[in-house]
Amino acid sequence: MESSLLGQSFVGFRRTTDRGSSFKALNPATRQELEPSFFTAAEKDLDAAVSLAEEAFRSYGSLSGAARAAFLRAIASEMEASGDELIARAHLESGLPLARLQGELARTCGQLRMFASVAEEGSWASARIDRADPSRKPLPKPNVRSVLRPLGPVAIFGASNFPLAFSVAGGDTASALAAGTPVIVKAHSAHPGTSELTANAIQRALRTCRLPEGTFSMLFDGGFSIGSALVRHPGICGVAFTGSLKGGRALYDLACNRPHPIPFYGELGSCNPLFILPGAMRARGSQIASQLFQSITVGGGQFCTKPGIVFLPPQNATKEFLATLNAAVVQSSPFTMLTPGIGSAFSNAIANREQEGTVAVAARSESQTSAQSVAAQPILFDTSVATYLSHPELEKEIFGPTSLLVHYGAMKELLDAARALDGHLTVTVHAEEEDVKEFSELLSILEKKAGRLIYNGFPTGLEVCHAMVHGGPYPATTDSRSTSVGSMAIFRFARPVAYQDFPDGGLPQELQNSNPLKIWRLLDGSWTKDAA
Amino acid sequence: MESSLLGQSFVGFRRTTDRGSSFKALNPATRQELEPSFFTAAEKDLDAAVSLAEEAFRSYGSLSGAARAAFLRAIASEMEASGDELIARAHLESGLPLARLQGELARTCGQLRMFASVAEEGSWASARIDRADPSRKPLPKPNVRSVLRPLGPVAIFGASNFPLAFSVAGGDTASALAAGTPVIVKAHSAHPGTSELTANAIQRALRTCRLPEGTFSMLFDGGFSIGSALVRHPGICGVAFTGSLKGGRALYDLACNRPHPIPFYGELGSCNPLFILPGAMRARGSQIASQLFQSITVGGGQFCTKPGIVFLPPQNATKEFLATLNAAVVQSSPFTMLTPGIGSAFSNAIANREQEGTVAVAARSESQTSAQSVAAQPILFDTSVATYLSHPELEKEIFGPTSLLVHYGAMKELLDAARALDGHLTVTVHAEEEDVKEFSELLSILEKKAGRLIYNGFPTGLEVCHAMVHGGPYPATTDSRSTSVGSMAIFRFARPVAYQDFPDGGLPQELQNSNPLKIWRLLDGSWTKDAA
Repeated sequence: MESSLLGQSFVGFRRTTDRGSSFKALNPATRQELEPSFFTAAEKDLDAAVSLAEEAFRSYGSLSGAARAAFLRAIASEMEASGDELIARAHLESGLPLARLQGELARTCGQLRMFASVAEEGSWASARIDRADPSRKPLPKPNVRSVLRPLGPVAIFGASNFPLAFSVAGGDTASALAAGTPVIVKAHSAHPGTSELTANAIQRALRTCRLPEGTFSMLFDGGFSIGSALVRHPGICGVAFTGSLKGGRALYDLACNRPHPIPFYGELGSCNPLFILPGAMRARGSQIASQLFQSITVGGGQFCTKPGIVFLPPQNATKEFLATLNAAVVQSSPFTMLTPGIGSAFSNAIANREQEGTVAVAARSESQTSAQSVAAQPILFDTSVATYLSHPELEKEIFGPTSLLVHYGAMKELLDAARALDGHLTVTVHAEEEDVKEFSELLSILEKKAGRLIYNGFPTGLEVCHAMVHGGPYPATTDSRSTSVGSMAIFRFARPVAYQDFPDGGLPQELQNSNPLKIWRLLDGSWTKDAA
Repeated sequence: MESSLLGQSFVGFRRTTDRGSSFKALNPATRQELEPSFFTAAEKDLDAAVSLAEEAFRSYGSLSGAARAAFLRAIASEMEASGDELIARAHLESGLPLARLQGELARTCGQLRMFASVAEEGSWASARIDRADPSRKPLPKPNVRSVLRPLGPVAIFGASNFPLAFSVAGGDTASALAAGTPVIVKAHSAHPGTSELTANAIQRALRTCRLPEGTFSMLFDGGFSIGSALVRHPGICGVAFTGSLKGGRALYDLACNRPHPIPFYGELGSCNPLFILPGAMRARGSQIASQLFQSITVGGGQFCTKPGIVFLPPQNATKEFLATLNAAVVQSSPFTMLTPGIGSAFSNAIANREQEGTVAVAARSESQTSAQSVAAQPILFDTSVATYLSHPELEKEIFGPTSLLVHYGAMKELLDAARALDGHLTVTVHAEEEDVKEFSELLSILEKKAGRLIYNGFPTGLEVCHAMVHGGPYPATTDSRSTSVGSMAIFRFARPVAYQDFPDGGLPQELQNSNPLKIWRLLDGSWTKDAA
């Protein structure tokens, strides 16, 4: 299989040929390097990719929604056609189970098709029309119409933990292409082969749809220089990033400190606090414990939505909950982590936490790990609200199969802990009818802390739908007004443009009198599909 | 009249009493200082205002749209009731004509009532509902709902050039209050008395509506320390600013470099390029010239939307156009500028431009100005596209009654000039049927350069409506995805929050099954007012 991989960047349809510094992917299950070598792109390749993207934007940016939809569907079909190869390589590069990757491929293609439908239907562009009134006093009213238009070429940085769904053809790329912006992907160095296979699929779709080559490029980078240069490049109009707080903040700072700042959508992680109220603990403590164990350890705890802090009520039922949860952890097998870097970050964070002794170890897996794989053993910590509140570092995300259990006493303690929370992607509350008063008090605080609130469920397992918000106040993201999952993700790559007193033929189709696209429009303040 | 003014900041309903450094307003028509003294707020006042705003947010942030609407309408009524006093003081502090200020008060109250209607109708909150499907395979589909929720307390910096419509109760404040965010205004030091009278009106409305005092505070600042501290304050969740590129960029940098960055909406100005195509020049050159003179000099050229660069075709008709335009400039009277700072910035910029000699003076007012007022004489400059393109500094805004005429030769030259444009608030094209090919080529470039495109009109005279975009790529604004005028301005102060598997009673009203607010919602992907 490796023979089909060239290890060179994609500058439109051209593959680069320079052979500067190189890197290889590593199989975390065996610590074996995988062939072939991948070569870090040169700055001139980056410049060429941006020039092609700017050129492509002239036509791709004003392509019809139907044509963009056809392209997105073609990408999905091409990925499905290469599914076995993609999944096999992603399995080698990530250590993720094949079944999980099959599901992830289905999700990725589902996302592409959802954005295809959104682009094709067209109402996302939020067309608004205020008709003229030449007889208005004291001044005639002009004819003003506005619609969302694509930002221009954008840079996308995929994440290591979803080599398909949050990578080269993931939700960021799908939503950007749906909005009409050409995309330059900085391939994640942990799964370059999967990235190359995906880029091949996208390029086949581009050719099938006869679209300009600059609509998609992809650059390899074994370090950080190409990624940084991409964010600073004057031709780049926006950035989407999923990854660590440290890396994301560094790139965000570059985006804001440019001579011409650009939008930066960084999804930087989260502890996803989970609150169990007394009634819920009494009613179904053991059941919550079993499901919580699954949620903490799914994907080896390497989900942005993993519950990393769990607040527990002062009850007898909590003992049973802990017995169930701790037993599951003790008996659990080690997980293969995505990369040696993530593996050592996890083991260092756990070792630090143990050494500091601020919180106690509640349970740890008794399984043995082998030095031949990048593995992590599940472990739980345990503390009180008082200790938690006096150690803000306990709110930092630890990426991997671990969580911190925090015991609260009176309800006031729980509310204090909630008020002290930083921004998170999600917050979850388990409650029963009898908890209604506590739930209501808690909710009024938690609504300000996260992008998604979950009732009696678990934050992992993110539904891709129209109402989804995968976002939240900093440091969960760098832009709480956006989501990186669900159809609203398309709004990240567009800006409104108004047309005043234009002749009908000079207007974008979305704004023409007859409403040729049959989309929803705000006509003189009322939503309608009628002609203007 | 001055006796009613205290010169002290508003911390909720409390007026500060410290008397630290002070400043006075100045009448630019006479250069006389106006009583009383205004005192720069102390940091402790700022802290107190933010604490009150955070407290107020708990109730104001979840108030119904109808209640917010009543408050906005009460502000408009209170301002109208104080209209004579407001206009008289604004006239003294700004030098703007009374008739203009009467129109501006009407616009300000119109904006408040427009946002009241938007908040009351409620569909702006973009409610989305994806219903559950417990039988879906391989995994059950959860019930996910989302709605826009207010950001939290925001800081607002008014502009000097619209002491009512872009100041204390201007569009920024109106849209923020409509969204549900408490507001802390940093009063503009050029019109502190007008600001105090407006703040009094807002506080009367707050009391009438029995809303928490922290919903509105206003701080005086003779310098920059309180404004900077406001942007850096951890309790502030967003900033709206209208003013200079230099000041706006400095505050933007503060907002981005916070430990927790926040959205910053800076409207920083623009040259508003205006293109005259050959057919339009032939058909109505003189008429365009007369109207262009009005657009360049309205408000003394102190509008963000003043056309500061005008591209002229190579034709005989251009001579007649120039004769008309230049004659109007030569015969024009001087304008009273808003502040000594703006007046000297204008005269320095004009003197520099003359001294550098890169471009020629085309016409200047022959009127005399008096040293007793802050006055500026209209002046036009003239150059070629070649010179224009080789001197990027010519694209910098000069605030005041001036514009740069740029003569193009072949159409290619015009397109090159268009491609080289930076971001602007507006771009205008004058064209006739015969210009259709040139117009179409130009338009495809210009759509990427501005927030609003105007056909056969003028950029000054901004309509406040649903489709308006008063925004544009940097440096026109710091966030091209937003507008500071028109009903879409409300989106600046909100973020989406999703609720997963919530009981109906625990949801915000916008998302409850029965659709009690009768708003438009995206239900399983289709817009409807139906129940879920």
